[in-house]
Amino acid sequence: MTGQVSAVESLAAVVNRIEPLDSSAMDAAAAGLDRLTKPPGSLGRLEELVIALAGITGRADAAVARRAIVVTAGVTPQMGSNFVAGGAAINALAAAAGAAVHVVDVGVALPIPRIRREPRRGAHLVRARIANGTADFTEGPAMSRDDAVRAVAVGLELVERFRTSGGFDVLGVGEMGIGNTTSASALVAALTGEAVARVTGRGTGIDGPAMARKIAVIERGLAHNQPDPSDPIGVLAALGGFEIAALVGLILGAAAAHVPVILDGFITGAAALVAAAIQPALPPRLIAAHQSAEPGHAIVLERLGLRPYLQLDLRLGEGSGAALGIGLLVAACRVRDEMATFESADVSGPAQPPPARAGATDS
Amino acid sequence: MTGQVSAVESLAAVVNRIEPLDSSAMDAAAAGLDRLTKPPGSLGRLEELVIALAGITGRADAAVARRAIVVTAGVTPQMGSNFVAGGAAINALAAAAGAAVHVVDVGVALPIPRIRREPRRGAHLVRARIANGTADFTEGPAMSRDDAVRAVAVGLELVERFRTSGGFDVLGVGEMGIGNTTSASALVAALTGEAVARVTGRGTGIDGPAMARKIAVIERGLAHNQPDPSDPIGVLAALGGFEIAALVGLILGAAAAHVPVILDGFITGAAALVAAAIQPALPPRLIAAHQSAEPGHAIVLERLGLRPYLQLDLRLGEGSGAALGIGLLVAACRVRDEMATFESADVSGPAQPPPARAGATDS
Repeated sequence: MTGQVSAVESLAAVVNRIEPLDSSAMDAAAAGLDRLTKPPGSLGRLEELVIALAGITGRADAAVARRAIVVTAGVTPQMGSNFVAGGAAINALAAAAGAAVHVVDVGVALPIPRIRREPRRGAHLVRARIANGTADFTEGPAMSRDDAVRAVAVGLELVERFRTSGGFDVLGVGEMGIGNTTSASALVAALTGEAVARVTGRGTGIDGPAMARKIAVIERGLAHNQPDPSDPIGVLAALGGFEIAALVGLILGAAAAHVPVILDGFITGAAALVAAAIQPALPPRLIAAHQSAEPGHAIVLERLGLRPYLQLDLRLGEGSGAALGIGLLVAACRVRDEMATFESADVSGPAQPPPARAGATDS
Repeated sequence: MTGQVSAVESLAAVVNRIEPLDSSAMDAAAAGLDRLTKPPGSLGRLEELVIALAGITGRADAAVARRAIVVTAGVTPQMGSNFVAGGAAINALAAAAGAAVHVVDVGVALPIPRIRREPRRGAHLVRARIANGTADFTEGPAMSRDDAVRAVAVGLELVERFRTSGGFDVLGVGEMGIGNTTSASALVAALTGEAVARVTGRGTGIDGPAMARKIAVIERGLAHNQPDPSDPIGVLAALGGFEIAALVGLILGAAAAHVPVILDGFITGAAALVAAAIQPALPPRLIAAHQSAEPGHAIVLERLGLRPYLQLDLRLGEGSGAALGIGLLVAACRVRDEMATFESADVSGPAQPPPARAGATDS
């Protein structure tokens, strides 16, 4: 029990370290971008990424070299093994983004077995099982408050481990679970007050009648648990899954460590919404990689004030969109770091536009 | 003159080689994606990219290893030198996408001087100057029909050079010019019949009065030249620039060679519209990397039946969006090539869904 009380204390301490963005670093980054050989602002949202990174890290030249993607998983042993063996979508997409993948087994059914990790792109397995799955939220809370706090602490501790073992520059978050869009929709409905039908979608693919049952299940869960939106940990315990709770810890921990968090889809968005209910200063420290096909995701992003960078109709999870988002962030930083300035390239700056072509009126 | 007649003949020959997509390769690619350890279709538009690539190349396992980005340029010598020295945005973004950059000097003002190419990411310079710039299209055609055909041939010849010197798997196209959003808007208005004001934007950044002048210039150009939309080369000669004409050749040449063409922004879109007017079977062979901030770009993409993959408010040109699009295509192909199948990973396939979590109704 002592361990758990200290977990509660450490959550409060972490949450209190989350600060507003560093505006002077953002100003410096913006000024740096305007010295590059391009019209000011012409790289649009790539420039926005560079400026956000500066605000989050406090450094106009923040590195993005050490990239981690953490996938919290409550899955079948075979699915977990596929991550470790390097055969899942996230393994391929993380490799493309130059990111290492860590899979956290937080429980549900049987443990992920120990198998040999595929050395080039297989995921590192982190064992942090809270229990063999959560309870049916239509009959009571999905987990005890203690278990919810313990699962959040799994995320906090993983951030701490990254921080103390070489550090990390960027964190992508993803999840892999069974039925966790149901949990995510329930959380979003409870925290936003939106109608269940508005925040509930087809997950990875269910049909009309199953969709009606899904909405009914969530409505029963809300009616039974009567979650109080002013108590985010209580809402999480009532309706969440372990993998969502661990994401809440990862997100808060990375934000406190001034590491940018690249969100994936609807479920990581729901976790971010819980985290933002705990610490309202959080959202500017988050980067929404993409908008998924789940209808509730747009509502989550709007509440968080985040504009997604990609709209690719992804509905897989696993951090797949986060990996693509990391790729964009890395490309944006290459622009920041590798482009010539007007001064260094001896190119006339935007204050002295080049002569207009005959018949043309703009540059 | 003989050279120019043969250029006309070779354009017709190239155009006739552009075929509908290979539907059996597309079916094979789609079936391959459905064997991978993920719910069918859950990677959304990444899967669409894999299938499109198969249709374009005729191979379900087409490679994307040899990546070229060609930037057709009518710019100041300093701007051209910056590409060769590796200091432009496209150098950084192409390096991030693992693509080589080629800058084609098609003319305008002074030639790009010979400077030492930065070995890691500097652009290869191709000299193919048609003339020292085009004429004022408010007073007559921007170029003669012969020069338009010659500039198109520059693109065709460059594709041929790539094909015969080691080959290339994917072609990103971009441009860098002075005032060429004016030419692009005029071309789009002439080919689509849309009002000039609807297809004209701020380019890389002009204010309200300059915008009104830009629209008036384009309207004068259209009134003076009376371009006939059923004669795309005539429209191109009347209103285009050399860099747009060279793009038309690059696009048609790559399509005929079964190489996917990754379009950049509004100006490459206008070139694609000219190319599609020459060969209506062309558009499915094009991939729209992004939708730019130019209002006319949405109209171009709609006419071509293309849905952009990225919306990042880019308005630089240079192939910057195409480079990001190549990054997405490469990531999609890594998914195709590196993921395990349900069979190889011993994971239950989508026909046997994993057991539902208590309280949950979907996967």
